[in-house]
Amino acid sequence: MLKTCAGLHVVAQTPFRADGAVDFDSIDTLSAFYYRHGAQGLLVLGVSGEAQMLTPDEAVAVAARFVAASGDRRIVAGVSSPSLAVLESVTRDVMSEGADGVMICPPGHVRTDEEIIGYFGAVFDRIGDVPVVLQDFPAASGVKMSVPLIGRLLERFPAIEVIKEEDFPSPPKIGRLRAEMPRPVRILTGNNGMYLPQELERGADGPMAGFSYPEMLSGVYDLMQRDDRAGAHDLFNRYLPLLRYEAQGKWGIAIRKEMMRRRGALDCAILRQPAPALGEADLAELDFLVGRMDLPD
Amino acid sequence: MLKTCAGLHVVAQTPFRADGAVDFDSIDTLSAFYYRHGAQGLLVLGVSGEAQMLTPDEAVAVAARFVAASGDRRIVAGVSSPSLAVLESVTRDVMSEGADGVMICPPGHVRTDEEIIGYFGAVFDRIGDVPVVLQDFPAASGVKMSVPLIGRLLERFPAIEVIKEEDFPSPPKIGRLRAEMPRPVRILTGNNGMYLPQELERGADGPMAGFSYPEMLSGVYDLMQRDDRAGAHDLFNRYLPLLRYEAQGKWGIAIRKEMMRRRGALDCAILRQPAPALGEADLAELDFLVGRMDLPD
Amino acid sequence: MLKTCAGLHVVAQTPFRADGAVDFDSIDTLSAFYYRHGAQGLLVLGVSGEAQMLTPDEAVAVAARFVAASGDRRIVAGVSSPSLAVLESVTRDVMSEGADGVMICPPGHVRTDEEIIGYFGAVFDRIGDVPVVLQDFPAASGVKMSVPLIGRLLERFPAIEVIKEEDFPSPPKIGRLRAEMPRPVRILTGNNGMYLPQELERGADGPMAGFSYPEMLSGVYDLMQRDDRAGAHDLFNRYLPLLRYEAQGKWGIAIRKEMMRRRGALDCAILRQPAPALGEADLAELDFLVGRMDLPD
Amino acid sequence: MLKTCAGLHVVAQTPFRADGAVDFDSIDTLSAFYYRHGAQGLLVLGVSGEAQMLTPDEAVAVAARFVAASGDRRIVAGVSSPSLAVLESVTRDVMSEGADGVMICPPGHVRTDEEIIGYFGAVFDRIGDVPVVLQDFPAASGVKMSVPLIGRLLERFPAIEVIKEEDFPSPPKIGRLRAEMPRPVRILTGNNGMYLPQELERGADGPMAGFSYPEMLSGVYDLMQRDDRAGAHDLFNRYLPLLRYEAQGKWGIAIRKEMMRRRGALDCAILRQPAPALGEADLAELDFLVGRMDLPD
Repeated sequence: MLKTCAGLHVVAQTPFRADGAVDFDSIDTLSAFYYRHGAQGLLVLGVSGEAQMLTPDEAVAVAARFVAASGDRRIVAGVSSPSLAVLESVTRDVMSEGADGVMICPPGHVRTDEEIIGYFGAVFDRIGDVPVVLQDFPAASGVKMSVPLIGRLLERFPAIEVIKEEDFPSPPKIGRLRAEMPRPVRILTGNNGMYLPQELERGADGPMAGFSYPEMLSGVYDLMQRDDRAGAHDLFNRYLPLLRYEAQGKWGIAIRKEMMRRRGALDCAILRQPAPALGEADLAELDFLVGRMDLPD
Repeated sequence: MLKTCAGLHVVAQTPFRADGAVDFDSIDTLSAFYYRHGAQGLLVLGVSGEAQMLTPDEAVAVAARFVAASGDRRIVAGVSSPSLAVLESVTRDVMSEGADGVMICPPGHVRTDEEIIGYFGAVFDRIGDVPVVLQDFPAASGVKMSVPLIGRLLERFPAIEVIKEEDFPSPPKIGRLRAEMPRPVRILTGNNGMYLPQELERGADGPMAGFSYPEMLSGVYDLMQRDDRAGAHDLFNRYLPLLRYEAQGKWGIAIRKEMMRRRGALDCAILRQPAPALGEADLAELDFLVGRMDLPD
Repeated sequence: MLKTCAGLHVVAQTPFRADGAVDFDSIDTLSAFYYRHGAQGLLVLGVSGEAQMLTPDEAVAVAARFVAASGDRRIVAGVSSPSLAVLESVTRDVMSEGADGVMICPPGHVRTDEEIIGYFGAVFDRIGDVPVVLQDFPAASGVKMSVPLIGRLLERFPAIEVIKEEDFPSPPKIGRLRAEMPRPVRILTGNNGMYLPQELERGADGPMAGFSYPEMLSGVYDLMQRDDRAGAHDLFNRYLPLLRYEAQGKWGIAIRKEMMRRRGALDCAILRQPAPALGEADLAELDFLVGRMDLPD
Repeated sequence: MLKTCAGLHVVAQTPFRADGAVDFDSIDTLSAFYYRHGAQGLLVLGVSGEAQMLTPDEAVAVAARFVAASGDRRIVAGVSSPSLAVLESVTRDVMSEGADGVMICPPGHVRTDEEIIGYFGAVFDRIGDVPVVLQDFPAASGVKMSVPLIGRLLERFPAIEVIKEEDFPSPPKIGRLRAEMPRPVRILTGNNGMYLPQELERGADGPMAGFSYPEMLSGVYDLMQRDDRAGAHDLFNRYLPLLRYEAQGKWGIAIRKEMMRRRGALDCAILRQPAPALGEADLAELDFLVGRMDLPD
């Protein structure tokens, strides 16, 4: 099922209540919001989903609730961990809760091509043939994977069905991946969608990113599918001021959650602490920015 | 003179010929281009000026040529180096060539507040009271400087006259700097100008960034000065698709140089090797992007 | 109770069976071995205890078994985690199992003095007044803490009762800590005990390290207590060839476990996979080294 | 000539005068000291030779003086630099001053196997067929090179004649290098000589390290050559307390220079500032340590 994925897969937020507890009810409204705006599936427990703020038990419960709300869409769960034991147990649990696959990024101490291949060997020894999204995200992980190395990983590990490509710059790397991979593989993109039109033009199969207006991400993909390149760029450019504004790390996630709260997607915009909180100046800045953009809702 | 700087200070490219030699003649056309489009001064020998590809002797010669072409504008030279001996000798040489000051970012091995203060103590012991731009750019340097630490540096080292603020996210940090600094200091911004309107609204004194359309950077600054905030945002947003496209690290610099070549600012778009080179797919992508933007020239 | 700790606190290994499961029975023999050779307490779930290879549930079970075998000795549990939620839940669980305190090292993304103070503020908001060993170990954590910063942490957080000092070089840093701390605090040392005589001479209260001959670590401490400095150095130097040989990262842990297996302290020398395994050449090298050392047992 | 190197190659200190100037006269006494104690050659301008504190011009002058004092011994100059332009110009200059080769370690931003191969391609395009020592030192450089990658570098770049192996743990890696390299290559070792007997047993051709008693390093090598393994270990162990004490980073270099000043090898023990300086407690500690060791001179 992952093997044929295409289109928008949203990197989902994790909603919290004001007291810091996971807000499971908001997972349902959030899911409905994502699907209403074109998501074909979700990546849950990602970095911008604050996965690192959850215990393993909470992480599995969050994934389970997203699965329950998914209907027939795909749910991929991020399970990267410096601990293989945690990776293995969370993978087993989210798969038994009904996830369609897991996303894995190697931990920072794994460095050479030989070590990276050895790491995935150890991973697949433990998790078996669970479908895997390979995340290539050196800015967050510290691990650089060259195009030839990714090719070797694909040859050796058939369970890798998707590459989430967010190395930098992404457009030429996606071009090389499309030209040099030894077998068919889906490529989804990340980096907050900041280079989405170019990434799709280079051969990506869809965005796997978060944005408070997911209809832009799915809309750009659809227009590109219909060969309306100009329309895709126009739609993208219209939202770019806010897209760029949300692309400011964890502080940008606070912005995104606030925007999604305003749109009714979740109840409470708070991030689990410690985390940035928006002050008056931040909210006023956001108001002005958004006020000029003539956005839907 | 640095003490009162405001407005656009362009992070200048270093032009090379096809054989890799520094193209000194293009420094003159490039300077004219920057000043024609609103630059009040230049930051030469920055990271995106490929300073790390020059020998110290070449670096000084490049700075000298920019000074010769500067008329009465300010020239600040980047002198950061893992070697204090090199920092000292390049500083002495560029100042005697007529630079107005130097920009310094601490090297990556300098980590704690105590070490950072000690590092600048050693720097100023060597270079004396040369006017300094303190560069706060952790994504490139690996050195994080908190707002209280920057305040302590300002208290202790009166030669620091400007902060180039490009930590991430920059708007709230600039807000805090404006509120908490112990003495007046100029704040210029970086990060490829990607957050310029917000940074100016938070109190920055101007952009210190590179872009192939510097008239946008100076124009946004001027509109903000005239309190035309809406106009500033409109101008910024119009160029944002290209601004974002150039904000892709060293590959983005290749794009920027190609755009500047097309505009007649320099003769040859090549970066000193080893460096990314643009292929057909890259140029076609750029053509399409720019073609839709209705840009001047 | 931590407040008055002194003498040897062994960084305990975690024993595994050949199939990779935790070998709980060997925890009992291992504990007896440590206490028989002079340990006043243990640090369990440390880096060289392979804590990163355990799930949170396994970690708590391991700590509980060490507590059960501890009699009236101190058990400190390492709870450092990139996830505050995991840190909080493991801390709660190991304390309710009877641990005497926890050891915390800030995660690598926490960098400036301000961030480090903020991090511990968030930690203590969650865990309350649990006694804490502050681990200063930049080679492993990536976080540098200056002496003045450690002083500020002690002032602000009374629950910090011990510093595990393993910055590099440790002797002058321990000297500064002894001179500059704002309140009494115990200092234990690490770095595989490689600088133990010097660290004790500078004012450390004992080793918190691992070695297959813990009687050397406790013996050096005892001799120093009795002002027999020459005797302490002689004892240390006698074991130094092996001490140094075990000080080779995770591969050194494999050596240490093999030595401890030979001494009957645990059943199986294996590390949880993936991990280095010793080959014939390694074992022959170890045999020759140890054969020349005239060691007890 | 590098191709057949064997035995001790000392990582040379750079002597400074109290005012911070290079002490060229002491280069002569230092050279005589190294050769008198068994050095077959020197590595000058290494990290522990404070190369990063020199300007490129000073570096070349230092190398030239060492060459002048070398008689028929080999001089290898460290030329690693984040700047390829500096690497190229220093290489050209030290070779024309008479050096036998240069040592190169890739800079930290070069990460994947593909990037490392590309980096050396760019290096050799610039420097031609200058004999090269490849330095494998991830703890200092941040660059990890696997054994298969080093094999590929040897296949592709015939000018690499020596590997300076100081990855960690070194003994098993040297064993693998000896077994897996595609062509003959010399292997010298580093890491302050801390694992010298084991490294020689695994097939290394000699130490390339610094120590205030170089006669121990050459002596261990000679005893191993004569198959007196026990004698080699005894000699090594006798010096180990001091060897370990000098293995404390830049602070250890201050110790080493002080010891070498006491032995008459150089005039002034100072490091170029900013650098650690030894205080009374440090010197007393050193006196006691050395006093118990019954050393020559």
